[in-house]
Amino acid sequence: MDPIDLLDFDKSGGLVTAIAQDAKTGEILMVANMNPEAFLRSMETGEVVYWSRSRKKLWHKGEESGNVQRIKEVFIDCDGDVVMLKVEQVGDAACHTGRRSCFYRRLDGAEVEDVGVMVFDPKEVYGK
Amino acid sequence: MDPIDLLDFDKSGGLVTAIAQDAKTGEILMVANMNPEAFLRSMETGEVVYWSRSRKKLWHKGEESGNVQRIKEVFIDCDGDVVMLKVEQVGDAACHTGRRSCFYRRLDGAEVEDVGVMVFDPKEVYGK
Repeated sequence: MDPIDLLDFDKSGGLVTAIAQDAKTGEILMVANMNPEAFLRSMETGEVVYWSRSRKKLWHKGEESGNVQRIKEVFIDCDGDVVMLKVEQVGDAACHTGRRSCFYRRLDGAEVEDVGVMVFDPKEVYGK
Repeated sequence: MDPIDLLDFDKSGGLVTAIAQDAKTGEILMVANMNPEAFLRSMETGEVVYWSRSRKKLWHKGEESGNVQRIKEVFIDCDGDVVMLKVEQVGDAACHTGRRSCFYRRLDGAEVEDVGVMVFDPKEVYGK
């Protein structure tokens, strides 16, 4: 069986959810989406390729920043609408804000705390 | 500011993605969805309440199996379309198949390997 046949792209308009988890630390780095082509490209190249919903195109993670995600392990959930990738995060930062993880806002009751680890200055990396 | 205002429910038809991660081990247990009411109920009760897309109703995780998820920490990602919950998984199993995690199918090239840890027999728990 072809692994892509395990995925159910119909539930969310042609996309599955994709999670990148740091293979070493277990930290959840980011969540985005994949269409079939993004999934296949990721499997072929060994680096994570998402589908950008906002830009409506394939998004080779790190193409601008250099912070690519090297795939170490791939898992599919029980109902086939999520791919979970254990990755080596090059540059140690997954978030476009320069933080290691996109999940840097921690709720504490009604308070929101920034617990992010800043790794790079996005102005320097993206020039904007 | 109200924490729910950090969430962008518009991007996915009124829902955000919700990830449950084992607070102790870092294992990703499952991924589902929340509408605003599910998020608020989760925050109020301290146990995870999802929105079931298939059943089209609030889904207090563990309502049938007893395997509720007690919320330890809550994080929101940079663009506000994902909630990540670090939880204590009561019963040590999140998946309806009886496995600890829903991510029990590991891809190895063209091969799919079941690496799940079976915790309960779904026939006994759900009676079906």
